Amino acid sequence: MFEVTKSDPSSRARLGCFRTRHGDFMTPAFFPVATQGTIKGLTSRDLKEIGSQGILVNAYHLFLRPGTQIVKEAGGLHRFMSFDGPIVSDSGGYQVFSLEALRKVTDEGVRFQSHIDGATIFLTPEDVIQIQCDLGTDVVLPLDECVKYPTPHEYARVAMDRTLTWLRRSRAYFDQNDNLNALFGIIQGATYEDLRQECLKEALRIGCDGIALGGLSVGEGENLRYNIISFLTDMLSRQERDYLVYCMGVGTPRDILESVALGVDLFDCVIPTRLGRTGTAFTHQGKIVIRNAPCARDYAPIDSECDCFVCTRYTRAYLRHLINAGEMTGAYLITYHNVWWFERFIERIRAAIANGKFSEFKEEFLAKFDAAVKE
Amino acid sequence: MFEVTKSDPSSRARLGCFRTRHGDFMTPAFFPVATQGTIKGLTSRDLKEIGSQGILVNAYHLFLRPGTQIVKEAGGLHRFMSFDGPIVSDSGGYQVFSLEALRKVTDEGVRFQSHIDGATIFLTPEDVIQIQCDLGTDVVLPLDECVKYPTPHEYARVAMDRTLTWLRRSRAYFDQNDNLNALFGIIQGATYEDLRQECLKEALRIGCDGIALGGLSVGEGENLRYNIISFLTDMLSRQERDYLVYCMGVGTPRDILESVALGVDLFDCVIPTRLGRTGTAFTHQGKIVIRNAPCARDYAPIDSECDCFVCTRYTRAYLRHLINAGEMTGAYLITYHNVWWFERFIERIRAAIANGKFSEFKEEFLAKFDAAVKE
Repeated sequence: MFEVTKSDPSSRARLGCFRTRHGDFMTPAFFPVATQGTIKGLTSRDLKEIGSQGILVNAYHLFLRPGTQIVKEAGGLHRFMSFDGPIVSDSGGYQVFSLEALRKVTDEGVRFQSHIDGATIFLTPEDVIQIQCDLGTDVVLPLDECVKYPTPHEYARVAMDRTLTWLRRSRAYFDQNDNLNALFGIIQGATYEDLRQECLKEALRIGCDGIALGGLSVGEGENLRYNIISFLTDMLSRQERDYLVYCMGVGTPRDILESVALGVDLFDCVIPTRLGRTGTAFTHQGKIVIRNAPCARDYAPIDSECDCFVCTRYTRAYLRHLINAGEMTGAYLITYHNVWWFERFIERIRAAIANGKFSEFKEEFLAKFDAAVKE
Repeated sequence: MFEVTKSDPSSRARLGCFRTRHGDFMTPAFFPVATQGTIKGLTSRDLKEIGSQGILVNAYHLFLRPGTQIVKEAGGLHRFMSFDGPIVSDSGGYQVFSLEALRKVTDEGVRFQSHIDGATIFLTPEDVIQIQCDLGTDVVLPLDECVKYPTPHEYARVAMDRTLTWLRRSRAYFDQNDNLNALFGIIQGATYEDLRQECLKEALRIGCDGIALGGLSVGEGENLRYNIISFLTDMLSRQERDYLVYCMGVGTPRDILESVALGVDLFDCVIPTRLGRTGTAFTHQGKIVIRNAPCARDYAPIDSECDCFVCTRYTRAYLRHLINAGEMTGAYLITYHNVWWFERFIERIRAAIANGKFSEFKEEFLAKFDAAVKE
């Protein structure tokens, strides 16, 4: 399914291609987040225009609402959303474990209360795979146990062991039901190298169509995060075959560049949409808070280097007015720009790797981007 | 500026063309409402795709936020919004008079408190014209006094007289400052024929580039409304030249059809956008409340006779999910469909008049539309 097509000479950055039933996507790739079956504020037609290669959805959210059965009856999630590209579905492990007070974990599965109607729900790893098979997503993620930071080594081991047990059961169930889509393994183990190593080794033994790095960006800080990523991609580079590496929930432009340099291939993050709808926009000179007073009489586009329709038609002053006046059009336009901007950003990363100039690109980009942030 | 190009043999319905500096629009026309400088939920790019001929904005709202100066600096409202078609600006009389407790009216002008920051503001009829000249809108409406229903004859006369005094001052001020755009007269007089007649006569004497019917749809009921409209368009039909007749704040599909039959040429209404963003969609079989349970498993488009991108891509079930999940994409998609639907509806009215079949079209349309509403 995954093929590395070019490796950067000065880092672990690489170009690759991942094949799915809904088309290939080129890596490094950034997937915007469509938690409930839509990118917040955008349509699937917008995604096509933007050129988003794929998206991430959340099986837990869609299971609760509208319900797996409705999506299945609609002909699967691709038809339901009218999006024909690759869809990755997160299992919802992270969401369930965010409901700390509302859930109980046993080796058998998780019991939790729906955040929508309070109903008690029990899901096994097999249920979670079945939900994703019913949704018809292209990349399926198993139920895992994500621990918060910091977590004692003892509990991190329990959670990691359980994640592996669940991966084993997920793999067996998935292989009986689906052999067209991909099942990724999720690597847990908190910030402990021994646990991360053990988890990755065993996950590879069980069999994974790609490697998802879980339990990162939970407060551990950049250095610890990059150490863990580097440690794992180093181990992966010594395997016989190439595995796509997916860093879940990452990230900022800096996080993406640093992680690509360490060999990460796929990212998803709510940053472009969450910041967009609250009035913060990405530019090549850093982020701008459009809703702030300095934009009131700023008749320039969000980013003069951007060629999205928002930047060619509207000024910061207009967008600020819309956000200030509570007009959802403002949230829509800035979200559109941000998702477009991230897609062009990741395209430029791929072009830099293709030209053997990734490290230069990374340095130049960050010098410009961070300089303005500090102003 | 206005030319009637064809008259329906069986009613007062007519085709016309109104010229502005930002292009002509064909009548009957329906303008969606962009109170604060955007159609709620849509972009000006969407309006282009939908084929909206023009829009209505509110001078009062834009004066308060972002402020006339900012719009002027941006190069006028057309550039600020990136909309290059005809823009009608309502004076805000209706909005000011909705603030009953917060305003004081004298012949000199109105004193009121800003609904945004509570600041006390005094506006003369001349100020209101100046604001619209600064915005650069194509059709300007004078300050008027709109009374509620019912209002005693005595006060309706006071308000009507004041509306005329203000029209006289507005006309004089407008002619000194702007001779490229149009100033419409607003006809008040509540539900009293004598007052309406007097108002129209005097307004025509003062000079109007179009006739706006104000103070309708304020609770007086269909029969009274249609009587007043019919009475006024009958008077207008006996003038030497043709005046565009604009029925402010109207309406529903039925209101539009009945008013077109009485000789009304232009409409604006928030119905397609307000209903759209709360989950109600227009179809040729009547309105559907998409958020209701029957749509949960309805895998049909909103309207199988509609060719907008929402109807060709998404099902009622998906849209209901989005609205129920609080996703603004749902509000956007249904609003888009509704504004598209209204534009096609008014196009079909024009086509029916062109073919000499307006009355048949009206009957057939309402039979189908109302039948379903009653179900």
